[in-house]
Amino acid sequence: MSVGELGRRVRAAARPVAQASSGARAAALLAAADLLVVDAASVLEANRADLARAAGAGLEGAALDRLALDERRLRGMADGLRAVAALPDPVGEVVDGWVRPNGLRVERVRVPLGVVGVIYENRPNVTSDAAGLCLKAGNAAFLRGSASALESNRAVVGVLRRALAKEGLPEDAVTLLEDTSHAAAIEFMRLRGTVDCLVPRGGKALIASLLEHATVPYVLDGDGNCHVYVDAAADLAMAEAIVVNAKMQRPGVCNAMETLLVHAGVAGELLPRLARALAGVTLVADERARRHLPGAEPATEEDFATEFLSLKLAVGVVDSLDAAVRHIDRFGSGHSEAIVTQDVRAADRFVRDVDAAAVLVNASTRFIDGGELGLGAEVGISTQKLHARGPMGPRELTCVKWVVRGDGHVRA
Amino acid sequence: MSVGELGRRVRAAARPVAQASSGARAAALLAAADLLVVDAASVLEANRADLARAAGAGLEGAALDRLALDERRLRGMADGLRAVAALPDPVGEVVDGWVRPNGLRVERVRVPLGVVGVIYENRPNVTSDAAGLCLKAGNAAFLRGSASALESNRAVVGVLRRALAKEGLPEDAVTLLEDTSHAAAIEFMRLRGTVDCLVPRGGKALIASLLEHATVPYVLDGDGNCHVYVDAAADLAMAEAIVVNAKMQRPGVCNAMETLLVHAGVAGELLPRLARALAGVTLVADERARRHLPGAEPATEEDFATEFLSLKLAVGVVDSLDAAVRHIDRFGSGHSEAIVTQDVRAADRFVRDVDAAAVLVNASTRFIDGGELGLGAEVGISTQKLHARGPMGPRELTCVKWVVRGDGHVRA
Repeated sequence: MSVGELGRRVRAAARPVAQASSGARAAALLAAADLLVVDAASVLEANRADLARAAGAGLEGAALDRLALDERRLRGMADGLRAVAALPDPVGEVVDGWVRPNGLRVERVRVPLGVVGVIYENRPNVTSDAAGLCLKAGNAAFLRGSASALESNRAVVGVLRRALAKEGLPEDAVTLLEDTSHAAAIEFMRLRGTVDCLVPRGGKALIASLLEHATVPYVLDGDGNCHVYVDAAADLAMAEAIVVNAKMQRPGVCNAMETLLVHAGVAGELLPRLARALAGVTLVADERARRHLPGAEPATEEDFATEFLSLKLAVGVVDSLDAAVRHIDRFGSGHSEAIVTQDVRAADRFVRDVDAAAVLVNASTRFIDGGELGLGAEVGISTQKLHARGPMGPRELTCVKWVVRGDGHVRA
Repeated sequence: MSVGELGRRVRAAARPVAQASSGARAAALLAAADLLVVDAASVLEANRADLARAAGAGLEGAALDRLALDERRLRGMADGLRAVAALPDPVGEVVDGWVRPNGLRVERVRVPLGVVGVIYENRPNVTSDAAGLCLKAGNAAFLRGSASALESNRAVVGVLRRALAKEGLPEDAVTLLEDTSHAAAIEFMRLRGTVDCLVPRGGKALIASLLEHATVPYVLDGDGNCHVYVDAAADLAMAEAIVVNAKMQRPGVCNAMETLLVHAGVAGELLPRLARALAGVTLVADERARRHLPGAEPATEEDFATEFLSLKLAVGVVDSLDAAVRHIDRFGSGHSEAIVTQDVRAADRFVRDVDAAAVLVNASTRFIDGGELGLGAEVGISTQKLHARGPMGPRELTCVKWVVRGDGHVRA
């Protein structure tokens, strides 16, 4: 089926989903969770076909692992759907409201966006996570996964569609774009009037393509080139714990630290400590940091601009908080930036001056995540400023409608 | 100066403006208001030069009038700046906040966007209105007006810059792009990393160019193809008053009604009444409406799709509220849609089912305006769903930053 025809179908399903009760939508999510476990065999069989194809094409290591499903991961997906079903429903929330002097009653009410498109890479669990969040917020989901996960995604979407039908909701409210060609992706990005919001989850190439071609509104889930700045007034034991956590606890994700900036006043004491604590991490450092990190190679500008997503860290020494802010201005990606300090004025200035989705004081960057912050789940982490910034939960998949009630009011 | 170099200057001014106190920014707006009156002669002289050039180039009628300034209009611009200065400051508002079970304190705080770009047509008052709203919300304003208003815009921007300097704020926080070529406009739309949000105020050609070329985030101030639907259960005297107001009170603006839909059950009584009440309005109507509107020409599909912005109205008869919603779905531009009814269920269904920035019950579409709804002023009316929908006041020129505070928190 063509991209346009699929779009018309998912568009047609958006209104019944938006009109369905919160209870009906939650029931569909719970039914899908049950079916994922009941139908585990068929989903795993589809996944084995993907894995065989991917291995044949030379995929290996972490990439192959991300593609793989097993009973445990399927149960995780089912639990994710149940958790989303249990979240508060954002739809219908009266955001604010007031009465005008002429008696006109004004309300702003949260409503579904309509059709939410998601383009993502080869983790099949994103299929159920994203569809679940879209349905929670009253939207239809139009999904485009990677070629390598096609059979798995088809199986998971099949489960979701059966669950929708079981609860009297239109199957097309979860629709998979099976054409994984580049041309189809571009057509998808240009379905203006069909896709109300596109969430791209992918690398630089996808973002560049989106900026060039998209005519639909989108929210960028961008890179995380995250920094930790250890201030002159830091508690160094705390700094060590935060740095180790931000770099090592899970280095392959967007909220891991990629660059450490240390105030010159504490570099001599802190950096040798960190060299020991960060055993196993490849360090690259600027000239001043290398004086205290004899094992480190010189850091290039490219290093400071890179989201390593691995056990590699760039280290720089700065003379002031302002210099740290300037470095973050230049190299940061607007994701999550942390300061470690006991100085309340330094903390306040860092919070004010750093331009990012999230700033942290005396806490690891790893906390910037929908689950850790209490949103229950996230469809991505926005690094843009419009509409949604930071972790996007169900609320970020809604918009606001003005509702104005009068009794024959006309304008003078 | 090149677009890029101007962009760097306005970008550099964004941080001092964001860091300035609410009081300093308000003082700059009040100083600008005073200077507009004191320096009226120089602004009016610049405007006369624009008018002479425009008249020479064949501009006339309403277009020439929109370009013209006089003492009264200048005072209006000054009053606008004073009104914006007096509005509540959105910057620093703690949108929400909570404490996580591990003690991590989470807040979402409203912060300026940074650099707001505005592309607009030939009304010079937009220059001060837009710059005022940007500064109110802590942003630097990067403005691109029309070629025909260049001298006027330069004079008004000069006044604003002097006021900024007077209050110790950077002049570049209000910067005019004087190159009014199409190429410069496209370059402007692609200043990603410099322009945080672009608000285009213009016609279909501008929007089409933006969808094609823009890489900066934008909020569309789109067309208003607004409908009034008169339900079977309407109070017909109220319907008449609302229809006349929505069409005739100010036909040239985006929240005026362009199409009237009447339920078949009341068409026979209402339409002849409206034919008299709408004297002076050119009516085009579908076949069923023409039975009751003998003077009306047949309405084409094109008519129903057109934002006339004049004393012209398309009229259709529908058999049900659902048919009215389907018509609005097909032809509406997502701006403002009204129902006139005494039936609470019909009102509720219209409010739920119509997908638009604003829906009104028993009130004229003309109320969907920042001033009328109590925002104080507006930089435009968004017809998109992301970030801002409906009238955009100072709050819509801000974004949210997550601020997370711990005491050495690390993730397990």
